Amino acid sequence: MVLQPVVNIAEICAQKGVENVVLSPGSRCAPLTIAFARHPKLIVRTVSDERAAAFIGLGMALTTGKPTVLICTSGTAALNYAPAVAEAYFQQVPLLILTADRPPEWIDQLDGQTIRQEQVYGRHIKNSFSFPVDLLHPDAVWKSERLISEALNEAVAFPAGPVHINIPLREPFYPAPGEEIRFDAQVKVIEEETNTFELNRQQAETLQQELQKYSRILVVAGQDNYKPELLESIKAFSGASGAVVVGDLIANVHELPEVIRYQDAILACPDEEKLRVLQPDLLITFGKSIISKSLKLFLRKYKPAAHWHLQPAGQVADTFQALTRIVRCAPAAFFEAMAVRKGSEASNYTSAWSNIAERAAGFLKTYTAEADYSELTAVERVLQYLPQQSNLHLANSMAVRYANILGLAPEQQIEVYANRGTSGIDGSTSTTVGCALTSSAITTLLTGDLAFFYDRNGLWHNYLPANLRIVLLNNHAGGIFRLIDGPKQQPELEEFFETRQNLNAENTARDFGMNYTSCNSLTELEQALPAFFAAEAGTGILEIFTDSKANATEFAKYKQALLRALS
Amino acid sequence: MVLQPVVNIAEICAQKGVENVVLSPGSRCAPLTIAFARHPKLIVRTVSDERAAAFIGLGMALTTGKPTVLICTSGTAALNYAPAVAEAYFQQVPLLILTADRPPEWIDQLDGQTIRQEQVYGRHIKNSFSFPVDLLHPDAVWKSERLISEALNEAVAFPAGPVHINIPLREPFYPAPGEEIRFDAQVKVIEEETNTFELNRQQAETLQQELQKYSRILVVAGQDNYKPELLESIKAFSGASGAVVVGDLIANVHELPEVIRYQDAILACPDEEKLRVLQPDLLITFGKSIISKSLKLFLRKYKPAAHWHLQPAGQVADTFQALTRIVRCAPAAFFEAMAVRKGSEASNYTSAWSNIAERAAGFLKTYTAEADYSELTAVERVLQYLPQQSNLHLANSMAVRYANILGLAPEQQIEVYANRGTSGIDGSTSTTVGCALTSSAITTLLTGDLAFFYDRNGLWHNYLPANLRIVLLNNHAGGIFRLIDGPKQQPELEEFFETRQNLNAENTARDFGMNYTSCNSLTELEQALPAFFAAEAGTGILEIFTDSKANATEFAKYKQALLRALS
Repeated sequence: MVLQPVVNIAEICAQKGVENVVLSPGSRCAPLTIAFARHPKLIVRTVSDERAAAFIGLGMALTTGKPTVLICTSGTAALNYAPAVAEAYFQQVPLLILTADRPPEWIDQLDGQTIRQEQVYGRHIKNSFSFPVDLLHPDAVWKSERLISEALNEAVAFPAGPVHINIPLREPFYPAPGEEIRFDAQVKVIEEETNTFELNRQQAETLQQELQKYSRILVVAGQDNYKPELLESIKAFSGASGAVVVGDLIANVHELPEVIRYQDAILACPDEEKLRVLQPDLLITFGKSIISKSLKLFLRKYKPAAHWHLQPAGQVADTFQALTRIVRCAPAAFFEAMAVRKGSEASNYTSAWSNIAERAAGFLKTYTAEADYSELTAVERVLQYLPQQSNLHLANSMAVRYANILGLAPEQQIEVYANRGTSGIDGSTSTTVGCALTSSAITTLLTGDLAFFYDRNGLWHNYLPANLRIVLLNNHAGGIFRLIDGPKQQPELEEFFETRQNLNAENTARDFGMNYTSCNSLTELEQALPAFFAAEAGTGILEIFTDSKANATEFAKYKQALLRALS
Repeated sequence: MVLQPVVNIAEICAQKGVENVVLSPGSRCAPLTIAFARHPKLIVRTVSDERAAAFIGLGMALTTGKPTVLICTSGTAALNYAPAVAEAYFQQVPLLILTADRPPEWIDQLDGQTIRQEQVYGRHIKNSFSFPVDLLHPDAVWKSERLISEALNEAVAFPAGPVHINIPLREPFYPAPGEEIRFDAQVKVIEEETNTFELNRQQAETLQQELQKYSRILVVAGQDNYKPELLESIKAFSGASGAVVVGDLIANVHELPEVIRYQDAILACPDEEKLRVLQPDLLITFGKSIISKSLKLFLRKYKPAAHWHLQPAGQVADTFQALTRIVRCAPAAFFEAMAVRKGSEASNYTSAWSNIAERAAGFLKTYTAEADYSELTAVERVLQYLPQQSNLHLANSMAVRYANILGLAPEQQIEVYANRGTSGIDGSTSTTVGCALTSSAITTLLTGDLAFFYDRNGLWHNYLPANLRIVLLNNHAGGIFRLIDGPKQQPELEEFFETRQNLNAENTARDFGMNYTSCNSLTELEQALPAFFAAEAGTGILEIFTDSKANATEFAKYKQALLRALS
């Protein structure tokens, strides 16, 4: 006998707009499995490795903007979700995590697959609920329905994030013979009308006046989804005010032609005089994290007189140690309201940025066209060949850094994803699979060998989508340690930092029935890319072999040439 | 510049008996990496997937009995340790977990690889410490030394378990050019003399008198390491008192010829009259969990008049819902002190058990010799061919259950391991690798396909030991769901419970340079086993292909035949 309030969880989720469910099989979660699998409006997929399952769910929520439901059995299953839960928490992605549990009286009694699941995600979860154990009293049923709505409302409320419900279940787990599972369309649902976080007239006027005090305005966009209406408002604001707009690839502002896109290269310049010209008097930021280390160091050193951060709600980070004002509104609403400002004085500042950005663009184009084969030039070719209007997921460590240095052209219209909430090496493949499963566009993962093999189980299920492409930069090591100062001077470099690994992806492609191409030169790469990205090609891995030492040499050369070009 | 108190962590660990360190590479943990890698007395190995790294550390601690040190960088690295930390907590295995962190002022400031690491293991850790951030004041240095001793003392104190130290580190992470790393042999170390948990004379006399009240004494051993002195004391006690001793394979009491080793088969009998004869009036238990579900159900139904549990310290589980007395002493001390009891009245009870055990043994021998090829008969052959005095790790789900039904002969002298603290599907391969790395004996993993591919990264490092053997029962699914009632009647069986998976291990063996043999019949298996287990064969995978449906049919036949044989 499956309890009606447990069946109703699926119904409430469906009524509140959940579409995708990722389930990891188990016995204790059987009542949830049955309820969700039988619900006509929910798409349920099963992924055995819970670590991968949770990142796949995260990827789905990223592309759809709707909460993914994750379902697992009792025990360490819930702990294997933890890396993705933390990523969702800091990247602000809505997830509803349903962990089946033994009833409380059996905790700590040496039964199998029993841990202490309540509050198991500690401080990396927006909220944690306990589903009622006994459902005989009508108030318990009321609670059981109410808290599913509460959890989903909280998951999507700004800032979005993961919410956990622990669900203790007693046997029997399975419907009795002939028992029918019936979804109750009249189940209690609480809808929440979200606020639009606009400025009222008085606030807008005050801020407009404040804004007049500044002539060198720099807008820095942190990580965010692609939002056309936000881009429009930024365009209007920078047009009116002469503000300079800078954004890493993960900010998804690169479709704006006006955006400065080579800040990482530009600000690596050690020339104090040149940098001082770029110093803002007002810094306006929104969104989440910044990839570019040189941008962070620049703003921490050349501090603005004022730093306004736009964020509707939640804890605010002082990333540049310069924060002076928090504006509680939606960034688009702010820029729209401020677009009235006249920015005549700003012209010098704007042109200082655009001049150096042009030089950086010119340099990067020429340099990468002529430089030898290495990860830098290989990534440049991959970005160039990306299909228009496709998705790009950047794995952490060097993949995301190379891409951010090189940038994307506005006309490519690429949506960029990266797990920069925690910047972990762990779940990039799975996250990309989740994106690909819920998007019709070609979805490319650019990853390194450590990230790729770490998360190989992201491919271990029965749903590999044809639109998935994996570009694997294989240098057989954590090559980043040879590119940064510090580890490369230590005798422990190869064994304890780089950690040489011998795998290549050919056997993996064979295991999962994916196309496989490898290349060892720019010529081979340029030949392979069109076929690899062809819409009809099907899912595949393109493995780009490079040598870790050669990459380090080439990257050092690039940095020297860059400094010469900008000085 | 690497701070001396950070360098001293390695020295204190070495002085306190730590031998093995598993490191996962990262930048933030560089000062720890350098200190540990350069310490002449510590063996440091690097494993990139932190989930696997932590289970490898667990395996090392299991075989050596000494705490393994785990070192990781900041961010989700620490969360990937969580499944193994929970397993160590419930299986009571000593680990010292050192997580590098950003200094506290940079938490929640959108920096990369930054989560909330303090108390990150929630309630699955014996204790969590914070290493001092600033070490200018001598009291901070005193604390920094003291807490390493405290943490290691707590990790090994009964019940042993994992202890966490979060270590915030500021840049620079690397020694300056020419800077020497010097270990201070005079560093403060606090030794702890552990108690032996014996009974005093008065306690022993009282318990001896109490014991006289009971004539049907059943000793049930829970999971524990192999302890020769404990076996001696049990032998003396059961010899003197006529007590019956029952233990699952994971209790490691199977070297005692007197032990009842087919309790799982025997107690599956539904005949009330037969079971009542086996009901104890006194149940004495020690150790941790029990695998045998029929043993648990039997004791919960046919409750003893009294249930004494022997446990030196810590929370006690009431596994059989029958607990009446907790005796705070070492089990060996108890049995030694109680071995004076005369047990003349016990003869009927003893013979009831030994008669039915003999019948079960005879049945199992004949049945498995004649039955068709399936996982049951395949496991029987594998257990038969195991090298003498070797280690056997049993993965969760069906591998551990099959082996526990079939048992091991005393003369085989096999030490048995299994992650029954949480009974997760997650870390068996890694744990076995850790055991193999710290044991000179052949170390065999018996696993299923879901457990094996889940933890494939346990093989992804540069230290695969030649004594490792993996026997993989591949039925391309979570076959357990077809063997238990409930899921097998549901339409969701194949997609959402069994979760068919298509991998076999041939590509994996190729990836990691392991020998590979597969078999599809008992004849092939019997031919393969001697070469596979040969001492000089080197590490290999023996993949046993079976069909999930055929396994279910054969297992049902076995259960019917068993009932006939015992009735």
